[in-house]
Amino acid sequence: MESLRIYVDLAMPAETLELLRHGTAGHELVLPAKPVSSVLAKAERDPQFTTVDVAFGQPDVQSISEAAQLRWVHVSSAGITRYDTPEFRGLATGRRIALSNSSGVYDEACAVHALSFMLAHTRKLPLGLRSRTPNGSPEWQALRAASGTLRGETVLLLGYGAIAKRLAELLRPFGVKLIAHRRKARGDEGMPVVAEAGLPGALAEADHVVNILPESTETRGFFDRARFASVKPGAVFYNIGRGATVNQDALVGALRSGRVGAAWLDVTDPEPLPASHELWAEPNCFITPHVAGGHAGEVDTLVRHFLKNLERFVRGEALLDRVI
Amino acid sequence: MESLRIYVDLAMPAETLELLRHGTAGHELVLPAKPVSSVLAKAERDPQFTTVDVAFGQPDVQSISEAAQLRWVHVSSAGITRYDTPEFRGLATGRRIALSNSSGVYDEACAVHALSFMLAHTRKLPLGLRSRTPNGSPEWQALRAASGTLRGETVLLLGYGAIAKRLAELLRPFGVKLIAHRRKARGDEGMPVVAEAGLPGALAEADHVVNILPESTETRGFFDRARFASVKPGAVFYNIGRGATVNQDALVGALRSGRVGAAWLDVTDPEPLPASHELWAEPNCFITPHVAGGHAGEVDTLVRHFLKNLERFVRGEALLDRVI
Repeated sequence: MESLRIYVDLAMPAETLELLRHGTAGHELVLPAKPVSSVLAKAERDPQFTTVDVAFGQPDVQSISEAAQLRWVHVSSAGITRYDTPEFRGLATGRRIALSNSSGVYDEACAVHALSFMLAHTRKLPLGLRSRTPNGSPEWQALRAASGTLRGETVLLLGYGAIAKRLAELLRPFGVKLIAHRRKARGDEGMPVVAEAGLPGALAEADHVVNILPESTETRGFFDRARFASVKPGAVFYNIGRGATVNQDALVGALRSGRVGAAWLDVTDPEPLPASHELWAEPNCFITPHVAGGHAGEVDTLVRHFLKNLERFVRGEALLDRVI
Repeated sequence: MESLRIYVDLAMPAETLELLRHGTAGHELVLPAKPVSSVLAKAERDPQFTTVDVAFGQPDVQSISEAAQLRWVHVSSAGITRYDTPEFRGLATGRRIALSNSSGVYDEACAVHALSFMLAHTRKLPLGLRSRTPNGSPEWQALRAASGTLRGETVLLLGYGAIAKRLAELLRPFGVKLIAHRRKARGDEGMPVVAEAGLPGALAEADHVVNILPESTETRGFFDRARFASVKPGAVFYNIGRGATVNQDALVGALRSGRVGAAWLDVTDPEPLPASHELWAEPNCFITPHVAGGHAGEVDTLVRHFLKNLERFVRGEALLDRVI
């Protein structure tokens, strides 16, 4: 077996590093002096990087361009914003550098997080958990009457990838109507699919608009004033994709006018929002700090996912979650 | 068709009363001067009651015993605590008064409410919705690492009726292990069933203990010190049944010792708990004010459910949700 120089800039506890060392035995593991703290943070440049064959983490584009032997980058996040530029695509394609991501690591948790938002909304948990109203009071009647079960409601999934697919599986027993938005239907979605032309109609119909779009030049500011103006009055907007796909001023406006009934966001732009940001003051806006993909043993899952892909790379098989 | 005198003590908006009048055409509708405000409140005694054939609402036991022609009581709640006594059972059986409840009206909402609790817990929403921590901070890492997906976890359902059955359907796609506790397995539960003897083992295994027990002389104080002491350390306790099935002092103790990791309660004893109650001060205790069964159009659903049962009663067919 060819021995590869594998650069890993992911911070991890000692046990996980042990798992990584064990899984990469026979190869040479190259670690930076100071690992990055988050899978989303950009790594610092490191002279060791210039001679590696494989990189796992968040290597910077400049470093990648200077690493003449580099053949594969496995990104430790689901999002690949940093690499999703024509320049990088040109570099990777020209140099035959494969790029894979870790979306398989976060699908399940992201789908469960999205559903936790939908259920907390339909059961009015933010209100109910604060209320100490007695049975039979007008507040109690109102709280009960505002609660739902999702049954018969329409859920629009924007961005039909692994997260949307899993969320659809979790939603099926609720008796909802599902619609997916993706550029091109493949026919295996198991639900109606709308492309660009069908989107206004789908937005006007959906009670729940679940934004799982990745960030790219095409999706930046995707949810703008016009799109928010075309949603069904009172629809609930969820974002578990990337903050930059939403024009947040437009969202504030849509919440204030009541066009959007509530917003549940795991991602914002920037993260966290500054304390003075208007979304914090909106009573129907609920924000978690980019934790949808989080789960116990996450770094272990990331490393195992990379190691599984390393085996495939060594054998010359198709990589999992390959994006370029 | 025999014309029945039907007493209805349920408060309802004008449109729902219209629905009721329409559905009981040919019978005589008898309404109290002052309807009760909640499906759980006890109605006042009413001299008109003595001559009715059917009662829908929350008639008091004394009134029932004095209504010589009464043949059927349809209770407007899922719980039947007021009627679940040897005396009432004796009276109803002796006088051949059928008792049905409205559990079919609340199943779906109760099951969804229970799952909203489970997902809010596993995704750490109470913490996440308060946090404004930046990506990569120790608080962020901890929040992500504390989050889960339910996959592989064990859920014990106590009281296997319509709510548990529906909750099980909603939980199946999550990849959980389900166990039911009921007095006698029927074999159609689709999951292992434990009776009294198997309960300690099931409690020791379950990550999630979902209490849906109705209140009766047998279940009052069911979750006592001994039962809480036998749960898996850190297990999450949910109550969407009745508050009186839990010894709340024992629950406070179990939360303080960490034996119970968190409690999510829709019901307490009394409701609401007094402001000084220790459960309000427990950081891992989350309480909604008996709203699990609530849903938009609830009174309509109650009336439709009653009318469906009235048709069956008139035709001499078996009643839905009959309990005595």
